[in-house]
Amino acid sequence: MSLLVVGSVAYDGIETPFGKVDKILGGSATYISLTSSYFQKNVNLVGVVGKDFSQDDIDLFKSKDIDLQGLQMDESGNTFFWKGKYHYDLNNRDTLDTQLNVFEHFNPKIPESYRDAKFIALGNIEPSLQAKVLEQVNSPDLVVMDTMNFWIEGTLDALKQTLKNVDLLVINDSEARELADEPNLIKSADLIRKMGPDFLIIKKGEHGALLFTDDEIFSAPAYPIVDIFDPTGAGDSFMGGLLGWLSYTNDLSPQNFRRAVIFGSVMASFCVEEFGPDRLRDLTEKEIYDRYREFRELSEIPEVG
Amino acid sequence: MSLLVVGSVAYDGIETPFGKVDKILGGSATYISLTSSYFQKNVNLVGVVGKDFSQDDIDLFKSKDIDLQGLQMDESGNTFFWKGKYHYDLNNRDTLDTQLNVFEHFNPKIPESYRDAKFIALGNIEPSLQAKVLEQVNSPDLVVMDTMNFWIEGTLDALKQTLKNVDLLVINDSEARELADEPNLIKSADLIRKMGPDFLIIKKGEHGALLFTDDEIFSAPAYPIVDIFDPTGAGDSFMGGLLGWLSYTNDLSPQNFRRAVIFGSVMASFCVEEFGPDRLRDLTEKEIYDRYREFRELSEIPEVG
Repeated sequence: MSLLVVGSVAYDGIETPFGKVDKILGGSATYISLTSSYFQKNVNLVGVVGKDFSQDDIDLFKSKDIDLQGLQMDESGNTFFWKGKYHYDLNNRDTLDTQLNVFEHFNPKIPESYRDAKFIALGNIEPSLQAKVLEQVNSPDLVVMDTMNFWIEGTLDALKQTLKNVDLLVINDSEARELADEPNLIKSADLIRKMGPDFLIIKKGEHGALLFTDDEIFSAPAYPIVDIFDPTGAGDSFMGGLLGWLSYTNDLSPQNFRRAVIFGSVMASFCVEEFGPDRLRDLTEKEIYDRYREFRELSEIPEVG
Repeated sequence: MSLLVVGSVAYDGIETPFGKVDKILGGSATYISLTSSYFQKNVNLVGVVGKDFSQDDIDLFKSKDIDLQGLQMDESGNTFFWKGKYHYDLNNRDTLDTQLNVFEHFNPKIPESYRDAKFIALGNIEPSLQAKVLEQVNSPDLVVMDTMNFWIEGTLDALKQTLKNVDLLVINDSEARELADEPNLIKSADLIRKMGPDFLIIKKGEHGALLFTDDEIFSAPAYPIVDIFDPTGAGDSFMGGLLGWLSYTNDLSPQNFRRAVIFGSVMASFCVEEFGPDRLRDLTEKEIYDRYREFRELSEIPEVG
């Protein structure tokens, strides 16, 4: 079962309280592809890069067997660039610079050979572009979508239209409250699921994540990280781990969804340990499964008498 | 193993978005005693009430076999009164009125028959009063203390002095950050445990709770409550469930501490379902154990292959 990943491929300039990097590989499709590739051997990437995109970064994708047939090379300009600075508590960041460059006219074209994908990851891009992707694919089993407050505030109608064709929405808690216009998260979840998605994951950063399915709620813990080095890409890495596991196992049971949420959390917890995607270059299977076990131990509630 | 509970016994006036009550039984020692009494049959209460304290409320304690030998009746004034109003999101509240009344000169006297208590719950009162309690007891196995930002800001030296003789501190996340002067919760926990307590519980409201012991962290989920009716007393009910279970089982193993955190969460989740302590009057054993099982199901992570 292949996984189709659509989103941004970018360069980021990042400043955290612990260091600074001027230009490092970034973008939602980058993080989703890299993290899912640890589970799924058939990741197909759709995005656009500009004339400054380096061979080293192409080689990184290739080293993970990520298919780049759908990665458009637009020689008319540079790759999407974002620059941001994280505050001391790492929960807030200021955007210092945004250069859309070739991403401004990004029009996702899904290669013929990708169109039968059963699992689709729609990274955080404009909702109308996400909809265009769905128009080009045949009959996916699971469409997973990320979004952000920018689209909730700016293009709510398009967002709600796209949501109707989405199976799983992955957003953070403040976005969920904003989208549902409801302060109680549990009520927000009900309201959002009525907009279309059968499944919903609400990410709560240092407080873990909640998975809502028909019959139940699953509360996943956060990994207790003492030193978050750089939060960039954590949300996308979550989505990559989640979809990597689901597509690899091709099992949409509630139990396996729980595993997927934990593998998403595992990949996010690795992501923040180094700058950009650096920690995601050479993870071992043992590291990934060991951390999964740590999550289990962290939240295990013993039986009573 | 008896449980000694010291704290406030009060009347509260409460306004929430869902209703209003002018005068209802409240106070930290009230909630801790009522909730722990579902596990522990030998709860000893130390506090003070005034001439307006009603026989109905005395009878409520007696119906739960809570020993009132240590409850001082001060005829010189009325019972401590607090009045507050919760905002729409229920996470914030405004204090509208505080009348200390007889509580202003509260001097906890521990009856001779209470002094061998092995488990001690120090409700959220002035740290120097908490210290006075500890001077009067013989050799407890576990001293558990609650506090709040008011004491962290106003009487930090006394608080730190008392903390040296405390085994388990139970506070919320913003208080932990403030006490440790550190935004990262995991680092805060390390810093606070160096101040004295071997164990620390950080309550995170709708995000659950974290238990820190020597070797491990336990992440407990929050019960997904759609309609919180009145948050008053939730933190004290957590402490009561926790200490009720620990003292009843007399087992301080890490596994049993986890159970205690969940029973604390169970009692807090019941507490918020009705005004004041109303939901805590007639819980059944089945309701309590069923909810414990719900917590287990909520956070259970399946094994992987």
